[in-house]
Amino acid sequence: MIAEIVSVGTELLLGQIVNSDAQYLARRLSEAGVTLHHQTTVGDNPDRLREAIEVALSRADIVITTGGIGPTADDITKELSAEALGLPMTMNEEAARQLRAWFERSNHPMTENNLRQAMFAEGAVILRNDFGTAPGCIAPAGGKAVINLPGPPRELYPMFDAGVMPYLEARSGARIVSRYLRVYGMGESMVESKLSDLIAAAQNPTLATYCTLGEVQLRLTVRCLDGEDPGPPLDTLETDIRARLPDVIYAVTEDPHYTMEQAAVTALIHSGKTVALAESCTGGLIAARLVNVPGASGALLEGCIPYSNEAKSRVLGVPEAVLTTHGAVSEQTARAMAEGLYARSRADICLSVTGIAGPDGGTVEKPVGLVWFGLCVRGVVSAEKRTYTGERNRIRTLATLYGMDLVRRSACGE
Amino acid sequence: MIAEIVSVGTELLLGQIVNSDAQYLARRLSEAGVTLHHQTTVGDNPDRLREAIEVALSRADIVITTGGIGPTADDITKELSAEALGLPMTMNEEAARQLRAWFERSNHPMTENNLRQAMFAEGAVILRNDFGTAPGCIAPAGGKAVINLPGPPRELYPMFDAGVMPYLEARSGARIVSRYLRVYGMGESMVESKLSDLIAAAQNPTLATYCTLGEVQLRLTVRCLDGEDPGPPLDTLETDIRARLPDVIYAVTEDPHYTMEQAAVTALIHSGKTVALAESCTGGLIAARLVNVPGASGALLEGCIPYSNEAKSRVLGVPEAVLTTHGAVSEQTARAMAEGLYARSRADICLSVTGIAGPDGGTVEKPVGLVWFGLCVRGVVSAEKRTYTGERNRIRTLATLYGMDLVRRSACGE
Repeated sequence: MIAEIVSVGTELLLGQIVNSDAQYLARRLSEAGVTLHHQTTVGDNPDRLREAIEVALSRADIVITTGGIGPTADDITKELSAEALGLPMTMNEEAARQLRAWFERSNHPMTENNLRQAMFAEGAVILRNDFGTAPGCIAPAGGKAVINLPGPPRELYPMFDAGVMPYLEARSGARIVSRYLRVYGMGESMVESKLSDLIAAAQNPTLATYCTLGEVQLRLTVRCLDGEDPGPPLDTLETDIRARLPDVIYAVTEDPHYTMEQAAVTALIHSGKTVALAESCTGGLIAARLVNVPGASGALLEGCIPYSNEAKSRVLGVPEAVLTTHGAVSEQTARAMAEGLYARSRADICLSVTGIAGPDGGTVEKPVGLVWFGLCVRGVVSAEKRTYTGERNRIRTLATLYGMDLVRRSACGE
Repeated sequence: MIAEIVSVGTELLLGQIVNSDAQYLARRLSEAGVTLHHQTTVGDNPDRLREAIEVALSRADIVITTGGIGPTADDITKELSAEALGLPMTMNEEAARQLRAWFERSNHPMTENNLRQAMFAEGAVILRNDFGTAPGCIAPAGGKAVINLPGPPRELYPMFDAGVMPYLEARSGARIVSRYLRVYGMGESMVESKLSDLIAAAQNPTLATYCTLGEVQLRLTVRCLDGEDPGPPLDTLETDIRARLPDVIYAVTEDPHYTMEQAAVTALIHSGKTVALAESCTGGLIAARLVNVPGASGALLEGCIPYSNEAKSRVLGVPEAVLTTHGAVSEQTARAMAEGLYARSRADICLSVTGIAGPDGGTVEKPVGLVWFGLCVRGVVSAEKRTYTGERNRIRTLATLYGMDLVRRSACGE
């Protein structure tokens, strides 16, 4: 099954927003085993939009449009899609009713042009919009289909998941189930070289890798016929992967957006342990990311950002002699920071970070990118060193990931 | 002048990366007064890529490709572009020399296939790659041109700015200069309604708005002929805008990526003032963003994240009676936190933040999204309340922006 994405919006052609819809759809289509050969972006111009839909319909089974289904005059995607399919537009009474109810609930007067949002190609399946007014639709004709989705990601993502994915599954007669393994502590090219034959050989489930700064995500996707259990084939592939990547898989999840901070906070909550943070070079990033996980408040006792040497001494009791002799970025200072943090917070896990994020401040002995981590776990102190390359933001992000992983491992008792 | 973007890369069609190149190019083209009608993404398939380039050449003056110009066998964008233009490929000796020098410098052996990166369409202008091995090129033919750029954003952005922008300027016989006004404290739709007639009427300079969460950026772009001074027309438009948007423009800059944290740190450095932060609901985000600006270390004395009530008392000396009577999220607690922070840090500007980021913890009186900011400026204490809507991350980001703006305004003596 071949799909094509037609993104509609002058704001995309002006570069006012990035096309994250296209990425989301591409990723989900790949997951569903649907092939994508083209993605096209056009503006709100009727001629060019009509042509783009027609060209897409000529070479794909399913055309997915994003944007241009709102109430204003330049929202014409649905009309042109119906035209390309040779279908008339009709009012959907149920959609019209829901639209009226939506406006009533939110205490806005509904103008007549809003009813355009309840007009669809004849025979279309309506896709409810739980996060906006414009419903989407799946309009089938002649064995092909055009799927019209709204532009805003917070409306499109849930509509795709709830309405389009089941349609694709039904069309292909299979249910699609994905499992994600999150990898930390091994570079992208190393992961890929260790798995290359598995990636090439895997048919059902398929195996794909996605990389972000410092992390790799593995996606295992299985297509099952009715009544088939997706567990066993996923388990078998996971076992194969684990044998090649011991110790670097930190989470197995069904959520494609799972993060290291979720893993760390989950480990803290499960173990009942508390954490405190003293962040110099990461400047609060570790705390900020942990706090982003609902429920973090139960585990994070406090954080501090002792950015100056004076604060390191006053707040954490780092002896001035240590700072003078070894410097602020040193094993000794990292250890003293973690110890001082334990003395004041009594948290089960006390993590300190001190490093040189650059662009200035590096020397031959202590280059930009050098980061020391101190850890005090119920009074037992240790320290670890890492050296990162790249610019300031990259160094801090990588140090933040490493720090969160240290917290996670400590909470797991590793 | 009409341009078209052809993005090349199977990783885009699999949704492994978002197409930020396309956004960057679209934005810069709009700035250069070049019209963009279509953007197309195709994979590394020769037939589909050839067709995409041919179609683009048939309807645009300039076709810009991204990706597929590296050393491997599936990097075929340059060859297919030359074919579409009817030009033979030739080795560029200067590019070959630079390529050999690059490998020598980085101590990697150079394999022969790397020399493909020094092959270009006859007559093409080579675009040096300062951040990777693959040079780009501008290949003109018959009044049109194909511009081949590398895929990685950190290679593409500087190459476009250094090589393509001057070419577009030369083609249009004008120099393009942009000025950016950063707006905080007024919503997007309000800004647009106040400026709508200016946006519609502005021809040279043009005026465009770009919105991100909580902020609006105005872009003023002037096209000047040789020897013309861009200053006066930009100044005139800026004066018009300022008359309609008093008090909300916090920075005027030539950098499209300028941030609130840069404005805050710059104000701190210029005023010679120091800052300390006590962040409960923002959990270190304000500190993390300030620290991201090189030079922040001179101004930020310390930050703390007193997440629990216990830490608010112990670290900042918030009286337990205040916490019990008024609650952790209250004017009284925000004030006491700022005062306690001043007592311990003696920073010129002490900012505290306490709020309910959700999803739980809201009540009718104190809903999710309620945030109190406390400020102690050289001993004088004040407090401000804000109520935000949306989910946890959004509330924290908006509170972070507001906190940074408070620091900036305090440093400016506002």
